[in-house]
Amino acid sequence: MPADLKGRSFVSVRDFSAEELWHVLKTAVALKRRDASSLAQQVGGGSAPLAGKTLAMLFQKPSLRTRVSFEAGMTQLGGHAIYLAPSDVKLGERETTEDVAQVLSRYVDAIAVRAFPGLKSYEEDMADPVIESFRKYSKVPVVNMESALWHPCQGMADAMTIREKLGKVQGARVTLTWAYHPKALPMAVPNSFAAIVSQLGADLTIAHPPEFPLEKRFLDALPRRPRIVHSKDQGLEGAQVVYAKSWGSPAFYGRWEEEKKVRDGYKSWICDRVPDGATFLHCLPVRRNVEVADAVLDRSAIYDEAENRLHVQKAILSELV
Amino acid sequence: MPADLKGRSFVSVRDFSAEELWHVLKTAVALKRRDASSLAQQVGGGSAPLAGKTLAMLFQKPSLRTRVSFEAGMTQLGGHAIYLAPSDVKLGERETTEDVAQVLSRYVDAIAVRAFPGLKSYEEDMADPVIESFRKYSKVPVVNMESALWHPCQGMADAMTIREKLGKVQGARVTLTWAYHPKALPMAVPNSFAAIVSQLGADLTIAHPPEFPLEKRFLDALPRRPRIVHSKDQGLEGAQVVYAKSWGSPAFYGRWEEEKKVRDGYKSWICDRVPDGATFLHCLPVRRNVEVADAVLDRSAIYDEAENRLHVQKAILSELV
Amino acid sequence: MPADLKGRSFVSVRDFSAEELWHVLKTAVALKRRDASSLAQQVGGGSAPLAGKTLAMLFQKPSLRTRVSFEAGMTQLGGHAIYLAPSDVKLGERETTEDVAQVLSRYVDAIAVRAFPGLKSYEEDMADPVIESFRKYSKVPVVNMESALWHPCQGMADAMTIREKLGKVQGARVTLTWAYHPKALPMAVPNSFAAIVSQLGADLTIAHPPEFPLEKRFLDALPRRPRIVHSKDQGLEGAQVVYAKSWGSPAFYGRWEEEKKVRDGYKSWICDRVPDGATFLHCLPVRRNVEVADAVLDRSAIYDEAENRLHVQKAILSELV
Repeated sequence: MPADLKGRSFVSVRDFSAEELWHVLKTAVALKRRDASSLAQQVGGGSAPLAGKTLAMLFQKPSLRTRVSFEAGMTQLGGHAIYLAPSDVKLGERETTEDVAQVLSRYVDAIAVRAFPGLKSYEEDMADPVIESFRKYSKVPVVNMESALWHPCQGMADAMTIREKLGKVQGARVTLTWAYHPKALPMAVPNSFAAIVSQLGADLTIAHPPEFPLEKRFLDALPRRPRIVHSKDQGLEGAQVVYAKSWGSPAFYGRWEEEKKVRDGYKSWICDRVPDGATFLHCLPVRRNVEVADAVLDRSAIYDEAENRLHVQKAILSELV
Repeated sequence: MPADLKGRSFVSVRDFSAEELWHVLKTAVALKRRDASSLAQQVGGGSAPLAGKTLAMLFQKPSLRTRVSFEAGMTQLGGHAIYLAPSDVKLGERETTEDVAQVLSRYVDAIAVRAFPGLKSYEEDMADPVIESFRKYSKVPVVNMESALWHPCQGMADAMTIREKLGKVQGARVTLTWAYHPKALPMAVPNSFAAIVSQLGADLTIAHPPEFPLEKRFLDALPRRPRIVHSKDQGLEGAQVVYAKSWGSPAFYGRWEEEKKVRDGYKSWICDRVPDGATFLHCLPVRRNVEVADAVLDRSAIYDEAENRLHVQKAILSELV
Repeated sequence: MPADLKGRSFVSVRDFSAEELWHVLKTAVALKRRDASSLAQQVGGGSAPLAGKTLAMLFQKPSLRTRVSFEAGMTQLGGHAIYLAPSDVKLGERETTEDVAQVLSRYVDAIAVRAFPGLKSYEEDMADPVIESFRKYSKVPVVNMESALWHPCQGMADAMTIREKLGKVQGARVTLTWAYHPKALPMAVPNSFAAIVSQLGADLTIAHPPEFPLEKRFLDALPRRPRIVHSKDQGLEGAQVVYAKSWGSPAFYGRWEEEKKVRDGYKSWICDRVPDGATFLHCLPVRRNVEVADAVLDRSAIYDEAENRLHVQKAILSELV
């Protein structure tokens, strides 16, 4: 049995050991298997695990998937989620994050935060200031719904989907490939994907144009060193799982107009094919036929992956709260 | 017994047969009769029909009545409704309606949509593109909270109110009269009202200025042909039920500045009197003393009609979900 | 036993007798003592006091503390709160407050309203028009979440905190001191604090610059006449409880640019010390080191006070609804 997770926060997949991650994933699989009638019986009958419990969800930007999956998840566990929109909180403007975290800790049983990077200073974003401030001042568990650096619930859903499709993560040949997108996007999703598949023993390849590396500090910390290639074709070769995602160039961080000129030279990095039989993943939303071709998306596991967000988050909430 | 409605969508009153409509209305009457303590007992005691179930509500425009009646209704049935504001979703901008519908179907047990007409192209609005796209891609029941063309929950509440006041709908002398309003409004409410009272056997008169007909295709499809008149007084004569509502002119669709000149010539179409003893209905909100005179509203059934939104929607949700 | 509070509204602490206020405060203390597992059991097990009940919360401005404490409170009582944001309702614009109140009364079991003063006309704000209109037209209990004039739930939380810290309110030496803030703020908090501590028998001092009196009509109505001083130091002397709060000057009401010149002359009214052992209170949010010094806040009861909002509101809701 892994250590009891009650009361702990989940800011990055690196907060949990591989054993603890597997424990949560197994809980998620069990929750997914429950049919609707047994769920209704549990919620209606008073034995739901989070009956009477409340989650505060703070968003710095609106969200569809994350918001609905967390809110529906709390309901299915017998509890309730409070949606705080960007305009409701204005973190750091109306009052300090410390005061917000301290006060919310007196009202709710857990705090979930979506805090985007400022995309101005690389140093500042690498410190993940908002979520780390909540972790510091909150008296109740903090769950990361995507921060400047990490999107651990997405990573968990990705790992769960790989295990469903391949029967295992250990030893799976997994490729994370940079994809073209007209705008510079944060690195939370690729950081978390690389971290979790490495922690769970996959054989990871990362393919990206030379100007678009992931943070060296995080790559160096991975338990298994990934293979890095600068060619889309080389990256895809032999992959059993392909994960396409766009992100911004650290070399041009904050100088996004310059970065755009470089980026626009890589439109050919649209993900328009995967090896036969490979499982294709993407966190959504996706620009169809710009970032990924319809032909790839239409034979992909993207909706299963999105659904698994619900199950892993319910598992996380029921373990931590 | 009518056919089982479980799993079906409710986009227009025309989706259900008269027998199915009556079945839902009877469920609504039964739900209205339940007293608060038996309701609390059911929700608290675990036998509520929608325990553990979630409804996603997507709004393209904010709403008071619809939002509160759906959200309170889900709670009273033991479930939960997630409110997605216009700024939360931005249908078709951030991702395709197909992706939104597919993903939501994995999280929730039903999807309710409020999707207004663009009011630019008559042809496009007549295709009701947003709600029909949800109907096509959703794997769970879709409930129309007002679309470009239909507002079936309002129609159901209207029918329930007529039955309460007159004891029947069949054979009732019902007048739908166009009313003056400074702005061009959608036709979803009059379309739905005409359809349901005709389906349930009322004797319908529609009164409107010549430039403001309802869509011929829908009128031709009514099971009982309505009487059309172009005089307010003639329309009201002998009516047992008067429904006043404003809508835009199809002849000037998209050219609303021109339409306004025509419209402003019909300010005398304020509804300022009804036959003695007639039941007055309006879907609210109403411009008092512009669209309808206070004297009419103050002796009307508008608040009962608004309340019945709650009961019919609970009936619909408990039958479909 | 005090009179049954079921069905009554709570717009001002003056709506309740001292005996009734104590009854609610005792309920709050009992609710605070309940541990999480007994709460979960009650909500899950079907014996929660507000199972199946709904509260509509209308906000004219966004709020964090009030919104989360009311919404979490309803959940913990087994019910549900519907959050209506400023943009959802637009009171008085889209339809009359009468129509909103009448319709909501058909859907929900209580209505909570946050309605700020216009800050233009002193006369108009002193009539507290929005909340009084809801009180007039609602058929269900109305709870004031802060209006132009009153913030009774804050007052209740303040009284509960004083009793926790001093063991009593009766006879306590309590000082309400004006504090500097760059903007003119409403008087709802100081009005309510003065009213409740006076009703419960405290020995109240109010300290403020000469141009910043509270409304004479309310002071004259207090059951125990407060001592008024125009010196910060004199105000603090001997106080067991210090409540710092900023508010606007009635003499310059609506002429806020002129008022600002006067106000900016009183920057020395930052609350930067309290008598040894005194309990410091503030309703939050607070401008740290402008309105109140960190040194005072860091040894204060502000987070306990914020937490008590939850308990008093749950007590109010469970007594009235």
